[in-house]
Amino acid sequence: MKQFERLFEPRSIAVVGVSEDAVRPGSQTVHTLLRNGYEGQIYPVNPKYSTFEGLRCYPSLAAIEGDVDVAVIGVPARVVLSVIEDCAAKRVPYAVGLSGGFRESGADGIARQDRMLAIAREAGMRIVGPNCLGVANIHRDVYAAFGSITRPPKLRKGSVSLVTQSGGFGYSIALACARAAIGFRHVIATGNEADIDTIQFIDALLDDAATKIIVAYIEGLANGRALLHLGQRALALGKPLLVWKGGVTQQGARAAASHTANLTGSYEFYQAVFKQAGIIEIGEIHEAVDFIKAFQAQKFPQGRRVAVMGGSGGSAIVFADAAERCGLTFSTFSEQTRRTLSVVVPEIGAVHNPVDFTAGYIAGGNAANFATAVQTVLDDHNVDAVCLNFATTAGASCLAGAQVLSGLVDNTAKPVFVFLSTPPSETGNGLFVLEEANIPVLGSPVRVARALAALATYREARERCAITSGEIDVSSSPTIDPRATLSEADSKAVLRRAGIASTRDVLVRCADDVPFEKLRPPFAVKIVSPDILHKTEMGGVKLNVRTQAELVAAVQDVLDSAKSLAPHARVEGVLVSEMIAEGFELLAGTVNDVVFGPVVVVGAGGTHAETLHDTACRLAPFDERTARDMIDELDCRPILGGTRGKPALDVDAVARVLAALSRFAWQNRETVAEVDINPLFALPNSAIAADALIVGRSPANTPIN
Amino acid sequence: MKQFERLFEPRSIAVVGVSEDAVRPGSQTVHTLLRNGYEGQIYPVNPKYSTFEGLRCYPSLAAIEGDVDVAVIGVPARVVLSVIEDCAAKRVPYAVGLSGGFRESGADGIARQDRMLAIAREAGMRIVGPNCLGVANIHRDVYAAFGSITRPPKLRKGSVSLVTQSGGFGYSIALACARAAIGFRHVIATGNEADIDTIQFIDALLDDAATKIIVAYIEGLANGRALLHLGQRALALGKPLLVWKGGVTQQGARAAASHTANLTGSYEFYQAVFKQAGIIEIGEIHEAVDFIKAFQAQKFPQGRRVAVMGGSGGSAIVFADAAERCGLTFSTFSEQTRRTLSVVVPEIGAVHNPVDFTAGYIAGGNAANFATAVQTVLDDHNVDAVCLNFATTAGASCLAGAQVLSGLVDNTAKPVFVFLSTPPSETGNGLFVLEEANIPVLGSPVRVARALAALATYREARERCAITSGEIDVSSSPTIDPRATLSEADSKAVLRRAGIASTRDVLVRCADDVPFEKLRPPFAVKIVSPDILHKTEMGGVKLNVRTQAELVAAVQDVLDSAKSLAPHARVEGVLVSEMIAEGFELLAGTVNDVVFGPVVVVGAGGTHAETLHDTACRLAPFDERTARDMIDELDCRPILGGTRGKPALDVDAVARVLAALSRFAWQNRETVAEVDINPLFALPNSAIAADALIVGRSPANTPIN
Repeated sequence: MKQFERLFEPRSIAVVGVSEDAVRPGSQTVHTLLRNGYEGQIYPVNPKYSTFEGLRCYPSLAAIEGDVDVAVIGVPARVVLSVIEDCAAKRVPYAVGLSGGFRESGADGIARQDRMLAIAREAGMRIVGPNCLGVANIHRDVYAAFGSITRPPKLRKGSVSLVTQSGGFGYSIALACARAAIGFRHVIATGNEADIDTIQFIDALLDDAATKIIVAYIEGLANGRALLHLGQRALALGKPLLVWKGGVTQQGARAAASHTANLTGSYEFYQAVFKQAGIIEIGEIHEAVDFIKAFQAQKFPQGRRVAVMGGSGGSAIVFADAAERCGLTFSTFSEQTRRTLSVVVPEIGAVHNPVDFTAGYIAGGNAANFATAVQTVLDDHNVDAVCLNFATTAGASCLAGAQVLSGLVDNTAKPVFVFLSTPPSETGNGLFVLEEANIPVLGSPVRVARALAALATYREARERCAITSGEIDVSSSPTIDPRATLSEADSKAVLRRAGIASTRDVLVRCADDVPFEKLRPPFAVKIVSPDILHKTEMGGVKLNVRTQAELVAAVQDVLDSAKSLAPHARVEGVLVSEMIAEGFELLAGTVNDVVFGPVVVVGAGGTHAETLHDTACRLAPFDERTARDMIDELDCRPILGGTRGKPALDVDAVARVLAALSRFAWQNRETVAEVDINPLFALPNSAIAADALIVGRSPANTPIN
Repeated sequence: MKQFERLFEPRSIAVVGVSEDAVRPGSQTVHTLLRNGYEGQIYPVNPKYSTFEGLRCYPSLAAIEGDVDVAVIGVPARVVLSVIEDCAAKRVPYAVGLSGGFRESGADGIARQDRMLAIAREAGMRIVGPNCLGVANIHRDVYAAFGSITRPPKLRKGSVSLVTQSGGFGYSIALACARAAIGFRHVIATGNEADIDTIQFIDALLDDAATKIIVAYIEGLANGRALLHLGQRALALGKPLLVWKGGVTQQGARAAASHTANLTGSYEFYQAVFKQAGIIEIGEIHEAVDFIKAFQAQKFPQGRRVAVMGGSGGSAIVFADAAERCGLTFSTFSEQTRRTLSVVVPEIGAVHNPVDFTAGYIAGGNAANFATAVQTVLDDHNVDAVCLNFATTAGASCLAGAQVLSGLVDNTAKPVFVFLSTPPSETGNGLFVLEEANIPVLGSPVRVARALAALATYREARERCAITSGEIDVSSSPTIDPRATLSEADSKAVLRRAGIASTRDVLVRCADDVPFEKLRPPFAVKIVSPDILHKTEMGGVKLNVRTQAELVAAVQDVLDSAKSLAPHARVEGVLVSEMIAEGFELLAGTVNDVVFGPVVVVGAGGTHAETLHDTACRLAPFDERTARDMIDELDCRPILGGTRGKPALDVDAVARVLAALSRFAWQNRETVAEVDINPLFALPNSAIAADALIVGRSPANTPIN
């Protein structure tokens, strides 16, 4: 059986808590089911009535003679538990709890929700909510819901499913889609997620043949890593997953505190998951609409090279600005394309990219030329997608242009988008013709560029997923069992076994032990103590030590500093390390996040690393290609390519370090809380860790798998 | 007389080039004037007809008996010059050239445009265009225009004027405004700007009492500094100036090349002007609509502390995210506010910020509580603006909420915005009530945040303009006359006279001259030669020289390098400078831009400065407050405040350097092309230039004033 089949397609719905007060949630549910022609059985429940809206009304769930697939619970929180017990007794498979007064409302509410879940678990019953707007199957007129989901306008049937952790805001997205004639399959407001959560719903929607695109509004997840697996499955299935992550700033996270207090600050990790799984992030309501239109056209650019054509120079310039900002590049047309265009484009226009038709070109009398021009550009193998700026084109001209395009798009696999600013009523039916031909029509050139970029990003993710779908081999990674923080020397040794090169260093007990002749200056001299973490601040670090005399003095100095500033610290000795005086300082590390598990971070290193915050991260484990993507995200990336006459640095070696680190972090996720490599030197022919720290994980924490 | 009075309010319009072909520009003009009921005289001109659309048609301009205030020229380019001559003979004050075929179309077109301008100048006639959609005065039904400007829907009368360098794209903005019921005063498409340009039109609109808000789409300006003065005048007048700058990326600038090839890459300078003059930058069509709505409500936040209230938790979180991203902060309510709220907000809601009403709170039966809640938050002196999330509130509830708000806003000077996602038809007239009360209703919480931030930025700019409206005193700045590049020593000396401190250094001829005892190590040793600009690459720089022996060797080394690598370079000696080993490396400089004149840049310095591109700029001259704004924009700003236990650095001293540099650059704009101070060290109690270069300006270049 499909997941949640009886929830999504119930043969019968009991509504507990109907009332003469039409505003009550249960009343809204029954009214909506009746108004929309739900074809299953509706069982209103309220001992006060014998009928409700012409239906037989039952005194209790037990009194219902037939099976109940879904029980919608619209009674006040204090009586919900007894209804849940009734549901259990009746063997109802799904209960939808509309009422608030649970986890979101203090200790009593938390206890009530826990008890609710316990009863359900015992009975094998699944719960939606509580404190939610409920669920709707638009195709089957199922509304186990109340509030905005049940109010006009009725959503049309379609292939988009919505899962939202905020009923009010999530449904705002659905309403905007509705205004753009986008149709829906399931609408799901998850509320408190006492039982079934966003992850499980999305998982079920991936198995729902009628769902082709999933939009989710997410404030927080208990298991962020599950989103990665879900996203990768969605990607493999070719079902775009569009996610709006709410609570991503400090203010936003504080505002979301009651739901997601423990998840603050993990936005970078969500973004890492989005990138690793080809999840499309949305951050505006119209963006959801635009991207859905783009995906519904089902054509994907094979690259990022775009062409723009139209009679409005300004619109082309605005598109070019937006395209560059979202990582699209402008196609250079072939000589053949320019030759053909020069025959059909007026002399005062332009036959390079952007193609300038000049004003008035898109018109009935000029349809053949327009068709040739568009077809020519579509045929150019340097072009991956085309933006047609209709701009203010109106009336019969707009219709003529629309007809030309609708005749062309069936014969191309390349996306064709239209920017049109003319009010719908003045397009001479052109808008209708474009929409019928499944050509996305968007309200600004900026929006066209962003939607095309989303398609390109998605296609790239699909390609990457095809390449790297094999498991990452973690067998070569060393397994360790650190009970606490490892010393620099031990950390480096462990990382060397994991395949990460580090600077040569020697641990000495006193100044006399220094084997100057075995090492190459300059040196870094550092105190080694499990009790001194901030070595620099404690006078425990000397850099750029060059001569033997300096070295001996430096070793003595750091020992003396430790003795005077941290008299009780256990001192294991002094580490004398070869310093690296060239290349570029990066930092690399792992954190073992409570929601996402092991995550690898790379960033610009050096003194100001923390302040400038130039970092990129991915969930471990991953391969070198993913590692290179991370490096490419850094603002300091150009420096690695060689600047101001300096040689290019070994980006592949850095990628190998990151991939090795990711395997190590994954394999040791039960025991390792954190790895810090700072600095990690990128050099012309290698990448070398110059300092490292491995922090053990308290066994009390439960790792994520 | 007001500027362009007879152009904007002509008593008569001659249209040269009417035709039975209704598509011809001239025909469109006459049809539009007739359809919209223009009250002045219309004189169609075409020798082929005796009447046109019921009007007497004239064989020539000369044949018209009355005066002609505006001549609209819709004939092909090749016959435009003779029409222009007729206009001159007829003493027509304004000609609007609709036709293309001028500067935008090659050498012949350029010659034609030059000739057109010469005839006009001679006759004292002003020209709009050519190659433009023309101008319209919506209040007076004047349409000296064709194309989209003349097509339905007719714009309603209002107080917004639009000036656009792209007719097609600019009018797309007007159409979006029209759909949001925003009314217009003047619509002006400037085309080739042979004579009257964007700057002059905006200047005239500032003097137009009926224009309250100006929106401009700009691709390029011949005089960028004029925009600064214009913006400052608009700010002083309290007329918001909203500018969309097109062609701001490399691709965008290339696309705009035919118009603005010489202005490529100056987007930073435009942005500097926007900041210095309180110009509001827009980058999306809906942003123009939102910001106009915001400004038309005529209430400005006195600070950046915002509150959000509603029944949709998700909408509040999304607002919080967006608010933080645009620099708004969340108000902390007073104890009094929380107490009052706790009386009127349900217990399971929240009385801190964001205020959570819980679902269903905004409703007719609860109007009194809702009113008290909103009024209480508005009365809190910690709150500068309020976002009300109506979200999906619909029908009678929406109307009731709207009525409450419309009753409250008259009594507050604080901005109140509404996010509403319910389709207009389902708001129970609530949308209408809100709009009548001049409450901006926007389609997403993100858009509310952005619009509030625009208002806050504008108010801050107005306050700053009130403070710094006095002239900058440039009298103390040294005047120099550099014919070429000054040496480091000379550059530092000049800058010292301008009030900019620099490191001590000594110029020596040979290694024997070094006055080791007079200086404090470490030293930088640099070759001094007017012919060696890239000193490091030529082996001409030694850093961190500490001992006398090292110093002597270093001086000899750089002299030897110069001799072997640049044997023909004139070597003036070797500069021995005290090095600064602490603080933070910035860079500061000036460029003398052909469009903007002297501009001052500050940025993060050091080896990777160019790659990381962390810079801020302003047009010179400016005061220290503006300089501090620049510093505050830098990504590296937190480092200057002191990080990781390091002391705070002297930001005021850096600001004094930048202000001094700006006065110097302005006073020497005739002679100085460029000043480079790199590095400029920010230290705990000072800011010191460690290297400097002043590049003279070839007398051939004409400076901008």
